[in-house]
Order: sequence, then C-alpha cells, then structure tokens
Amino acid sequence: MPTPLAATVPTNDNTTLLSDLMRVRARTVALCDPLGPEDCVVQSAPETSPAKWHLAHTTWFFETFILQPFVDGYKAFHPDFGFLFNSYYESVGSFYSRKDRGLLTRPLFSEVLNYRRHVDQHLEKLLTQSGQEDADEITARCTLGMHHEQQHQELLLTDIKHLFWCNPLRPIYRERADEASSAATPVEWLAFPAGVYEAGHSGAGFAFDNEIPKHREYLEPFRIASRPVDSGKFIKFIDDNGYGTPTLWLSDGWQAVHERGWNAPMYWEQRDEQWWQMTLSGMRQVDPSEPVCHVSYYEADAFARWSGKRLPTETEWEIAAARQQNDGNFVEDGRLHPRPHSDGAAFFGDVWEWTASAYSPYPGYKANAGALGEYNGKFMINQQVLRGGSCVTPRSHIRHTYRNFFYPHERWQFKGLRLADK
Amino acid sequence: MPTPLAATVPTNDNTTLLSDLMRVRARTVALCDPLGPEDCVVQSAPETSPAKWHLAHTTWFFETFILQPFVDGYKAFHPDFGFLFNSYYESVGSFYSRKDRGLLTRPLFSEVLNYRRHVDQHLEKLLTQSGQEDADEITARCTLGMHHEQQHQELLLTDIKHLFWCNPLRPIYRERADEASSAATPVEWLAFPAGVYEAGHSGAGFAFDNEIPKHREYLEPFRIASRPVDSGKFIKFIDDNGYGTPTLWLSDGWQAVHERGWNAPMYWEQRDEQWWQMTLSGMRQVDPSEPVCHVSYYEADAFARWSGKRLPTETEWEIAAARQQNDGNFVEDGRLHPRPHSDGAAFFGDVWEWTASAYSPYPGYKANAGALGEYNGKFMINQQVLRGGSCVTPRSHIRHTYRNFFYPHERWQFKGLRLADK
Amino acid sequence: MPTPLAATVPTNDNTTLLSDLMRVRARTVALCDPLGPEDCVVQSAPETSPAKWHLAHTTWFFETFILQPFVDGYKAFHPDFGFLFNSYYESVGSFYSRKDRGLLTRPLFSEVLNYRRHVDQHLEKLLTQSGQEDADEITARCTLGMHHEQQHQELLLTDIKHLFWCNPLRPIYRERADEASSAATPVEWLAFPAGVYEAGHSGAGFAFDNEIPKHREYLEPFRIASRPVDSGKFIKFIDDNGYGTPTLWLSDGWQAVHERGWNAPMYWEQRDEQWWQMTLSGMRQVDPSEPVCHVSYYEADAFARWSGKRLPTETEWEIAAARQQNDGNFVEDGRLHPRPHSDGAAFFGDVWEWTASAYSPYPGYKANAGALGEYNGKFMINQQVLRGGSCVTPRSHIRHTYRNFFYPHERWQFKGLRLADK
Amino acid sequence: MPTPLAATVPTNDNTTLLSDLMRVRARTVALCDPLGPEDCVVQSAPETSPAKWHLAHTTWFFETFILQPFVDGYKAFHPDFGFLFNSYYESVGSFYSRKDRGLLTRPLFSEVLNYRRHVDQHLEKLLTQSGQEDADEITARCTLGMHHEQQHQELLLTDIKHLFWCNPLRPIYRERADEASSAATPVEWLAFPAGVYEAGHSGAGFAFDNEIPKHREYLEPFRIASRPVDSGKFIKFIDDNGYGTPTLWLSDGWQAVHERGWNAPMYWEQRDEQWWQMTLSGMRQVDPSEPVCHVSYYEADAFARWSGKRLPTETEWEIAAARQQNDGNFVEDGRLHPRPHSDGAAFFGDVWEWTASAYSPYPGYKANAGALGEYNGKFMINQQVLRGGSCVTPRSHIRHTYRNFFYPHERWQFKGLRLADK
Repeated sequence: MPTPLAATVPTNDNTTLLSDLMRVRARTVALCDPLGPEDCVVQSAPETSPAKWHLAHTTWFFETFILQPFVDGYKAFHPDFGFLFNSYYESVGSFYSRKDRGLLTRPLFSEVLNYRRHVDQHLEKLLTQSGQEDADEITARCTLGMHHEQQHQELLLTDIKHLFWCNPLRPIYRERADEASSAATPVEWLAFPAGVYEAGHSGAGFAFDNEIPKHREYLEPFRIASRPVDSGKFIKFIDDNGYGTPTLWLSDGWQAVHERGWNAPMYWEQRDEQWWQMTLSGMRQVDPSEPVCHVSYYEADAFARWSGKRLPTETEWEIAAARQQNDGNFVEDGRLHPRPHSDGAAFFGDVWEWTASAYSPYPGYKANAGALGEYNGKFMINQQVLRGGSCVTPRSHIRHTYRNFFYPHERWQFKGLRLADK
Repeated sequence: MPTPLAATVPTNDNTTLLSDLMRVRARTVALCDPLGPEDCVVQSAPETSPAKWHLAHTTWFFETFILQPFVDGYKAFHPDFGFLFNSYYESVGSFYSRKDRGLLTRPLFSEVLNYRRHVDQHLEKLLTQSGQEDADEITARCTLGMHHEQQHQELLLTDIKHLFWCNPLRPIYRERADEASSAATPVEWLAFPAGVYEAGHSGAGFAFDNEIPKHREYLEPFRIASRPVDSGKFIKFIDDNGYGTPTLWLSDGWQAVHERGWNAPMYWEQRDEQWWQMTLSGMRQVDPSEPVCHVSYYEADAFARWSGKRLPTETEWEIAAARQQNDGNFVEDGRLHPRPHSDGAAFFGDVWEWTASAYSPYPGYKANAGALGEYNGKFMINQQVLRGGSCVTPRSHIRHTYRNFFYPHERWQFKGLRLADK
Repeated sequence: MPTPLAATVPTNDNTTLLSDLMRVRARTVALCDPLGPEDCVVQSAPETSPAKWHLAHTTWFFETFILQPFVDGYKAFHPDFGFLFNSYYESVGSFYSRKDRGLLTRPLFSEVLNYRRHVDQHLEKLLTQSGQEDADEITARCTLGMHHEQQHQELLLTDIKHLFWCNPLRPIYRERADEASSAATPVEWLAFPAGVYEAGHSGAGFAFDNEIPKHREYLEPFRIASRPVDSGKFIKFIDDNGYGTPTLWLSDGWQAVHERGWNAPMYWEQRDEQWWQMTLSGMRQVDPSEPVCHVSYYEADAFARWSGKRLPTETEWEIAAARQQNDGNFVEDGRLHPRPHSDGAAFFGDVWEWTASAYSPYPGYKANAGALGEYNGKFMINQQVLRGGSCVTPRSHIRHTYRNFFYPHERWQFKGLRLADK
Repeated sequence: MPTPLAATVPTNDNTTLLSDLMRVRARTVALCDPLGPEDCVVQSAPETSPAKWHLAHTTWFFETFILQPFVDGYKAFHPDFGFLFNSYYESVGSFYSRKDRGLLTRPLFSEVLNYRRHVDQHLEKLLTQSGQEDADEITARCTLGMHHEQQHQELLLTDIKHLFWCNPLRPIYRERADEASSAATPVEWLAFPAGVYEAGHSGAGFAFDNEIPKHREYLEPFRIASRPVDSGKFIKFIDDNGYGTPTLWLSDGWQAVHERGWNAPMYWEQRDEQWWQMTLSGMRQVDPSEPVCHVSYYEADAFARWSGKRLPTETEWEIAAARQQNDGNFVEDGRLHPRPHSDGAAFFGDVWEWTASAYSPYPGYKANAGALGEYNGKFMINQQVLRGGSCVTPRSHIRHTYRNFFYPHERWQFKGLRLADK
C-alpha cells in the first residue's frame, strides 16, 4: 500500500490531466530534436546529466511511483532501469553513481524512447480507467510527476548549454536572430511597510511540499527593485575591479573567486575589449540591457554590496511578486536567453533570482510521506533560495510561492539577481 | 585616521579595563602551562591552529588595531609578524597560508612570549595615559580584543584536544578524577505562545556586531527542551542504526557519513562494547548522563528527526535562554568536559548547541567599519548558528544573544544539541 | 621544408603501400560497426579515448604530417580539427585537454567519417602521382602512419572494453561461442648461455625509432618459460593470499593494491565462488587454461616472486622470441580474448607481456627529427616495456623487436606475463 | 631465530665497531644542537620526517633488529614505540602513517633522548660480551644499523632545510662565511672504450644488498665529464627558455614543470635579476662556479638534451669513478652546501648525480632474508639511481658502488648532474 500524497495535492479533472500530462511528456522529447545521439549521452560536469538520462529518469519516476503501485501485475520495462535511472531516492533502493551517468552509452537513445512509449501507454490506460479507488492519489502523483518533468526540461537545456560550451566549436542548439536592443529602463523601487505578512502556499493549485504551509513572518520596512540587475550595470562592477576587491566578498566567495579563477559571469569571454557570451544560439555579444545571468550567489552578494544595497529575502521577494503578473520571458518564448527589460515591474522569467535566504523548512513543514518525501526536504542545508523562474522554465511551472535552490557557488543555471534595501 | 568602532561598543572604566585585559592576556599564556614547546607548534588539521599561533595572533590583534593607530611612532615588534600572524584580515594586507601555520617553528615559543610582553607593556602605558582624545575608541577596541582573545582561548583548547587525539599515546592535558554519575534528570518542555518577539542585543554591555540590531521576529508557538540531549539517548540512536538509515539524514549529511566513515560522535571509540571518548584528561568512558558532544550539524539534525522532534531556531533558543541564569559549566570550572545534568533548565556552558538557523545578518545589520568589519559579516554563508557556550568557554564571554557559527560538518568544537517541537 | 623521416624508415613499393594503407584505414572504421554513435563518443577514463576520437586523430596524423607538408596548397578540412585531434605533439601546437576528449559530441560521427574520406582521397591522389621528389619521405611517413593507425585500432578495442565494463548492463561488442577448453600444456624452460647478444632492429622492414639501433648486451645465463602464465596458476596465487602478503610486493605495488582495492585481475568478478570476467563478448567464466590477462606490472612482479621466479628482461625476451614463429592469436582471429595454450612455444599474440625492463633509450638512440620525434622518446621514464602483442593487436603490426610501454599500475590493456629464472 | 644477515656483510673487529657505532650515534644527536624542540617535531612535506622522528627511528632499528632478537629477556623501552617508529617494515608489524609523523608531539624530544641512551647502553653491553654465539650476525647488523643511521643523518639535514625554507623568516641552521669564488675550471672528458666491464660490489667492506652481486655489463664506447654541471651553465639553460621549451623535456617532466610551476632549481629565488638560494646558512646568492643543486631528474635530463649530451648510465659512472679518489666535499667539511669546483676530476661529495638508469636489481640480486630484506629491493620501480654522495653525506658512508635512488620529480635532496656523450 503506497504512502499517500493525495492529501496535499489537489485533484484535477482526469481528461485535462491526461492531455496535460501527454503534452508535457511530448515536450521533453521535442527538446532533443536539435540534438544528435552523441549530444544526448555525454555528461559534461558532475552536477549535470545527459539528455538521455533526463528522458529516462522522468519516465522511471512515473513507472516507480504510479505504475508499479497502482497497476496490478505491472512488470518493469527492464529489470536494471530502476538502478540506472533512480536519481537519489534512497528509500527506493540503490542507484547508479551520479557523476558517472555519462558512461551509460546503453540503453541507446532509441531504447529510451521505447521505454517512454511503454510507460506513456500504461499511464494513458490507467488514467482512462473508470472507478479507480486510488483516483485521487493517482491524480496527485501524476501532477507531481508532470511538474517533476518540467524541472528536468529546464535542466536538460542548462546541461546542453554547459556541454556545448565545453566544445571549442561552440555548437548551436537553436539558431536565433539578434534582437535590436534599447537602453534599459530605469529601476523603480517598490516600498513595503513593516508588519506581519503571510508567505507560502495554501488552497487550490499545485505546489511542492517545500512551499507549504502558509505561515506568518514579521518584516521590517523594505524596498525592492522593479527588475533584475542588467549586464551593463554588472560590467561596471567588473570595470570597478569588483572581482579584485576582497572587502566586497563573503569569505567563501573570495576563496571561490581565487580557486575557480572567476573574473566575469559564467559563459562570458572578452574579445577585443568586448564581452561575449555563450548562449544556446552560440556566441553572442553581451547586451547591456539584458539581465545579467549565470552568476553565483557569491557574485550576486558582492555586486549588491558594491551597489550599497543587499539581496532581498525570499519572503520580501514573494510579497512583492504576489502583486505582479506572471508574464515574463519563458521557454515557450523560444529565446532561451534573458530578454532586455522593457518596462513595468518584472518578477517572472528571464533569470532565477538569488535571495538572501538559506533554503530551510517553513515553520510546521512536513515532508511528503514515503519515498516522495525525499523530493525536497533533504536538501534543506547549504543552499540558497532562488525565485521567479527563467527563460528556460516552462511558464505553467512557475508561481510566486515557488522555491528553487542551489549551492552558492553554482552558476550553470540561468541565475541573476535583484536588489533590495532598507 | 582609523575607522571608528566606538559607536557600537560601550565604554568602560579604564582601570577596570586594564586589569580585566591583563587578566585575560595572562590566562591565555597559563593555558599553555601543561604543554611542551613541541605541543605548541604543531597544527593537526587545516581548521585548527597551533597554540603558539594563537598566542601570537591575539597579540598581533592588539598591535595592529590599537598600538599602531593610537601610539605615536609605534614600531612593530618584528617586521614579518604582520604577515605571519594576521589570520584573515584582507584589508590589513596579505597573510601566511592558514593551513601551513604548523610549519612556523620560528619564532620560537620563547620569542612569542617576548612579543606578548612587549605589546602588553605598550597597552598598559597607553591605557594609563590621561587625556587621550581617542579614549573611547581605544576602550572599544581593547574590549573587542579581550573578547577576541577569549575566543582564541577556547580554540586553543579544542585544537590541543584534536592534536592529542591524533597521537596513539593519547596524551593528557590535565589530570582529572572521575566524578560519580547519576541518572540524567528528565527533560522538561518549556512552552512559548505565538507572537512577535524581540531578539538581538541592544543597550549597554559588550556584544559583537552580528548580535545587533535588536529586531522583531514572528514566532509560531513552540516548545523547547530544558537541557541538551544526553549521551545515553544518543547511544540509543546509534543502537537503532541511526547512522545507517538514510531517511533520517539531510542529503549532504548522508554523504558526509559515508565519505568520513562516521558511526558515532567524534572522539568516541568502542572497546569491548563500551563507548569510550578522548577528553582533555585522556580516554574516559562515556557517561550516559552527560550531554552528547562533538557532533556535526548533520548528526544533530538526524538525531532530532529520529526523535520525532526538531532543532530550535536561534531565536527560539534566545527567547527561552533570556529567562535563564548563565550559571553553567565553563572553562573556569576546570572540568574541560560536559557535566552530567543535575536539575533545572540548563542553557549555558557544557556544549554549544546547534540551531536550525543558517548564520545570516539580522535585518539592518551593519558590519564594523574598516578592517574590523571583517570580523563576523564575511562568514555569513554556509554556516549554522550555535548558542550557549561550552565547558571550554570563559564564563564572562557568553550571553544569551551570543551567536557562534561553524560549518555543518565540523565536529572538533564542543558541540551538542537541544530539541524543540511544534 | 619538413624534417625528414625517410632515412630511418625503408621505402616500399607505392602500389602496395596505397592498398595496404587503404586496407588499414578501412579496418579502423569497420571496428566501429558493432557500435552506436553514443558508444563512440564517451570516454570512460582519463587514459582512454572515445572511438570517434581515434578515428579523427589517426586522420589528423596523415593530414598534418603528410598532406600539409607535401600537397601544394592543401587546406585543412576544418580549421579547429588541428587543435581538437592533436594528441600530444607539442611542436605542432596546442591541443585539447586529453582527459576531456569525451566532451566532444561535435563533430558528429558522420562528420568524422567525412573527414576520413576527404583525407583518404588526398592521400590516394598523392600516392599515385608520379615524379614526386619527396617520394621516399612520403612513403616513410605513410608507413609510420599506418603503424600508428594500427596502434589506435588496438586502443579502440581496449577502450570500448573499458567503457562497456562501466555499464551495469555489460553490453556485448561481438557475440562469440564458448570454445571447449583443455588442460594447459606444461611450461617448458628455454635455456640460454651467458654471452654478448645483439638486440634491436636493423636492416629492411619497418620499425619504430625506439627499436633502433641494434646494439650489444651482455647477458648472464638465463631460462625463460615457453608460454605466458595461465589463469589457473594465477588463481592459486589469489587463493594463497597473494594480494594480502606484503612481502611479495614492490612498495609502490602494495600501495596500489590498497588504494585501488585490487584483489584479482581487472575485469574479474567472483560469483558463487567462481571467477568471471568481462570480455568483448560480455561476461564469461575464467578459463584456467587461458593466459591471465589485465594485470598490472605490480601484480606480474608479485606473482613472479610468489613463484620463486622473476620476470624476464626485455632483451632476454627478444633473444628467445627471435627464434619463434609469429603465429599467435591476433585481432584477425576474431576472438578478442586470449586463447588457452595448446602446445609449442608461444611468444606472440594473446597478451602483452610485462618485462623487468624500464622503458629507456637504447645506446645510441636518436629520436626522429621534428615533431615526429615526439612519438616515442619523450615517454622513456616511469614506464615498463611489454613485448609480444595481444589478441587485439593486428598481426602485421608486431615483430620480435617491438617495444610497447605502459605505466606499472595500468591494467586496461590486454597484459599478462611470462616467467624467467636464473 | 632471526633470519641471518651475516653471510652478506663482512665481520669487523668488535672494539672498533663499538666505538664507530657510538661515534655515529652521537653524531646524529649533535646534528640537533642548532635546533629548538619545535624545529625537531614538525614535518614540512609528506616525504620528509621530523628530526625527532629520525632520532627515534634509528634507535628503533637497533632495538628491533639487534636487542630484541639477541638480548635475552629484552623488554621494549615503550610498548607503543614499535608502532610509532617503524618506518615501512611490513614484516615487523603495522606502523604509524608516514605523512602524519609531524603530529607526534609526544614523546617529547627529551624522552626520545632517553630512549636513545637506553638502547645505546644495551648495545654497548651486548657488544662487549664475550662468547656470543651470534657474534657475526650481531656485527653484521650493527654495521648495517650504522650505515642506516648515516642515511638518516643526511635526511635530517635535507628535511630541516626544507622546513626552514617554508618559513618566511628563512632561519639559519648554521652560520657560515661566504667563500671567495673563482671561475669554474673547464670540464674535461674522460673516454672509455667499448667492452664488457664489471660493476657492483664484492669482497671485503660493507655494501648494501642492492650493490651486489658484482656482474658484467657490455658498454659501448663513452665519454663522461670530469665534474658535475655548474650553476652558471644551468642559468644559461634558464636564460635560453629551457623551462619553456617542450621538446627538451620528457612528457612526464613537462607535466611536472606545469603542475608544479618550476622555473628554476628548488630553493632558488630571483631578486633584482640575481638568483638567490636557500641554504642551511640562510639565503645566499647563487655562485655560478658551484655545482647546480636541487634539480629533479626531469630537469637534469632536459638540461642534458639542451646541451646536446646525455646523462651517464649508472655503470658508466661507476666505471669512471672507480679510478677516482673519494675526497670530495662531505658533511664533515661543514659547508653543508656544494663547493665551487677547483681542479681535477670530482666524482664524490657536493651533489648526488642523477643517472640515466632506472633503479633495478642487478642480475642475480637477492634481497636480505627476513624483515631486513625490505631495506632496498622493494623500491626497485619508478625511481632513478643517483651516485656519488653529497655535501651532507658522511664521508665514510660513500663508495663508488653506492646506489642511491629517488623518484624523478623529487628535488629536496642535494641532487645535481654530470654529462656524458657518445
């Protein structure tokens, strides 16, 4: 008897669910269209995964958490795939070494597609059965699986970008015409008074367990910028010897600068005194009006200190974003790169924004029961919260209570920052 | 013109200050009485320092931040000591590699004592001069230097314990008779209602910049244990395969358990099915009634999860401790080891207590100006807050707003834990 | 004007050379027939290379050392391939990091085949031109290039074996029926008297520069075994706690045993008290009559000491092998695995044999001129000589003066040993 | 019943032996006179040892191999010293981690002196007993122990030099006046015809097992320089971009240059375009007439290639040195630094000389029986032979058959080179 998830994830209509699910599943495969099989197998860093592994792991997720517990007599597609494509669920059993995922030339890409079709067919059958006594739980898990798959869609793109950057040929994932740039609009400062605020998710609609429960927090008065920091401003930080001024940096950050030889955001290169950057459309000149991207927490924090400001806490960000439209530049826009800011407040899309908040449980947090409880809670140490989604995030995946989290030194995601003060 | 500290550290009477200062300075030297010169020079891990280095560095602190700016024509005792004994103050200049402090066989121990005497004489002269226009600032810095030196007194003892543990001869720092143990008294649960509370330091009395400003925080209702977890309870966790149960651990913690081969607190060894531990008095059997000590954050957190409880946040701890007497087992008691709990609430001494709070700036935090601003703020990432002081902390050093901080994997300090719930 | 190689490599007839060359070139591509593109791109250890890289690098060799110097106006197939596919020729220019070859998903496999065709066409045109003034030099370099390509054919197979072994699915490169085994024939001891012998290559026929010049060496009387050590005997060494007896091992070997956790040859696994091994035909039970394979120098040396014997020097081996037929089990036999010994002396094929000789220059050794001088001489330190070729070596590649060399700890090649005494 | 050594080490007269032994033992202690206890405990690199450890280990050697087997009822001075001060004799039992010897602040220096006195008294008593049935074996082992202790005297000095070099204060071990330098005398070339030569030790007088047996070797005609390469010539190599020219270097050497950042011999520093060097008398300007010192095998080999010459083999060196007086600059001369060459052939003292020969067993080599067999043989891999002794070697320790050995990258010994050709 599987441990239930249903209580915390609201039930949807099954017809919509099935079509949503299949659309999300198809989208993952479509992301591989511009890639050769060789591009899909290689792992370019321990924290990245091959595209083929993303395809297989997201399928394993549905097979393990839905088909095996809820389909009578379901037989695993392959006896070894449980070991190969479990990411980190200790409760489910042992798993293949994370840093060695790139060694798995077999199963071949074509076999993984077969695996996906097999699981999709069983999912379809399960979701169109009537009178399922576990219907709520199945719906809840399918919904979780869909959001899980969207997370891996984003990772697939960030990981391909990293892989292509390792190649001196600097391959292009998708051709894209340059867009005319215009001067960045001035930052506005949104002001909020002191008081006890509510944060976190409650009510209808999907949310991960780490967004729950809704809870109260006292905030001192604060101001928060209307948009992320742009590259032009970040170049000023570089030109002002920001990377060479120890007093701007956290101690661990200063060490990272030296050990890793940082002197600019990841993927940036200087050519003839101009800054260029690797994008999913190949090498492009840095547009000073676009949000700065691919910075670590340390760089975000140092930039804020240099600016005489600070990073917002995650609650400050959430309170401000709650009032804004979720209408940013997402993966569906097809740019796969942050867009120069036009006007109005912009809190969603373009770049994930580092916050000053360590990733910790909300007061009263309870992890999901069973193996699915390993989804979020066990990472609540040593990482910082990011908010808002990026240009490679699916639009339907994001919301103002959404909490992303990474280690402070990591830069390969599309990460930028926003300033706050007071 | 030195950047001022005076505004944030209240002024004391100078006569008292001088005698306090000299008493603290003498105490550091006295801690080396049981040691040979060889014990004072070796560094047994990158995060520890030789006793001789502690003696010299605390002296460099007074020379650099007080004598050089405030004594006309002061000439450094030795032109290279600034480089050798600066710990991490980037603004002051470059410094000798931290992990290599143990290579400095010269200056010899006797020369370092000369250095101390030289600086003490100049401090005495400075503090007994009348009509100093910078009197407030000098007082503020001397006070800071005194607290800084007390921190190094504790480190000197924790570092010697580590060094002696590396030696199969298991040397004894101080002989001590066994004390009769009694059964641990039951834990009581202190309950607090929801509401907006105040935390942090304000007003008279010394505090580090990281305890400031006093600020408000909303807390949900909580309960907190009246005393730290004892070793007997921790042995139950071990016996229940706590170190072998992945679902009890944070992901980074589980990795630490495997990479470092942890199966018990640091300094523990099993002999004939009994747990023994290295102490500053040599190998002793673990007393089940004494607070468990030398655990990492990961172990504290896993134990709490196993108990069905959690660690308190630092604010919960502070609110509860504010009502308690600061009358614990400190370095002056001479045990140099946690004491079995007798009765009543115990929040101070014995063991530093890991809290669930990442070490972050308080709302409105400002680092000290100038080089002294590198004291606390630049470490506000990747570390967790500990509270309460330990059996090797000087009693006058501690207070309920005091924030200590270490990386989650570190165990060589005297660290334990206390449970909370709700 | 390229630096000449012709003087040291004898000239062949051009028609034969061209057909030989194209046959060798085609053979390399044919080795990839059982592989998917994904198998061809991944690098499973820093010392291995992807199959695709072998295909490209051997082509780069002809383009760089023959087409560019001897074809007027030759334009490189791709401007970046010189950087990507140079292995280690410092004189030719900088090159891509060796350990990162597996990151090169581009050029795709199909593009590398185009590269090969392009270069082959130009080679064919060059070799069929009449009246070439550099004909001797071109012939010499083509001959070297052919032997160079044969070396990479062997590496391609050893590297694929390593890659497939990293995969829990244990893929099969080529299906192969089990052969009936028979008891190993007894070892005979071939005896040689003391005296001054000649070793090394001279006269007609191709040889690498490291086999030259022929020179004299005084040998004490010695005996050498008629065939390599078999697996059955090696299992006796294992069963006699050979891997646990420090006095059998060189000090560096004993350290390797512990750091790497060796308790059997590479690719061996124990299942139900039987030894199994990974082969290019998947997992097979170890046949006690076949030569033991995939041992390091340290294991070979420890086994010899346990046997009360020693390894032969390379000159002893060469003197004994000079009298034998080169009719062993080579890649053309299609087994891709050592064959149980039948009868008669066996010095060629099956397994490379570790010798007691450090890889050093012969008296009077001169490296080739120019960049091709980096072929052999610069590796003459820290490596041991191996002799005789293996079951994945092309038959036409080997001769009794041939010197192979690897670091003592390396095991992924098909390496065994032969005993000597006196 | 101990395994005998006597057969291979000739017997001396006992009275002379005892006085020789005690003189050697006293000399080791005297080497520590200029040191403080702190200098004696620290280990500055994994391959070095603390002076105190040398004092204790050489004592353990006599206790373990002479007192314990030959003195009835002998009781070890301390039960743990066997574990602490065994260097690497696996047959004797487990031992303390080599890289952690510097953690052993206890036993204190004074206790180690007690240990030495205790063992010396028992040795004296044993050697003055009459009628010992094991007299020959005892003599043989005492002789070995004496030579073993002389080896550690040299190591003690090289290790102190390394330690003091790590200290920015650059302490002085022994004050020494500068000597007037004169131009280096020209190198002469000593020529030898082809033929079968004899090498190795036989007959009376002590030799290590690795010098035995005397054996024959065929040599091609060769010439060898009359003295080592001087620093002036080595500076020419540096100035000619020797460290930046890859074709001069072995592949492993080129890697070492880059990984370790070498651009000059160890202990050299450039100040105002002059080369200075750390010596046991502090920082001194490099004298172009003195033999170059503290170079790795890779540097020696690259220099030889740059010179259009080569390094001699160890047999070439031995044949040439056999005709020379052993009258060089040794530790007894008190310089503790190589001396500018005056005139005549110089093969002994000043600097150990790298040879082109890998350290391997002579034909017919047999290691000593029992644990003493671990003395030399187990290191016969991955190391190169050095010959001739250095300015910190005891004069009575060296002979023309003496084989020293180190890894090619090691530089902290007093190592230089001599050229050969043909």
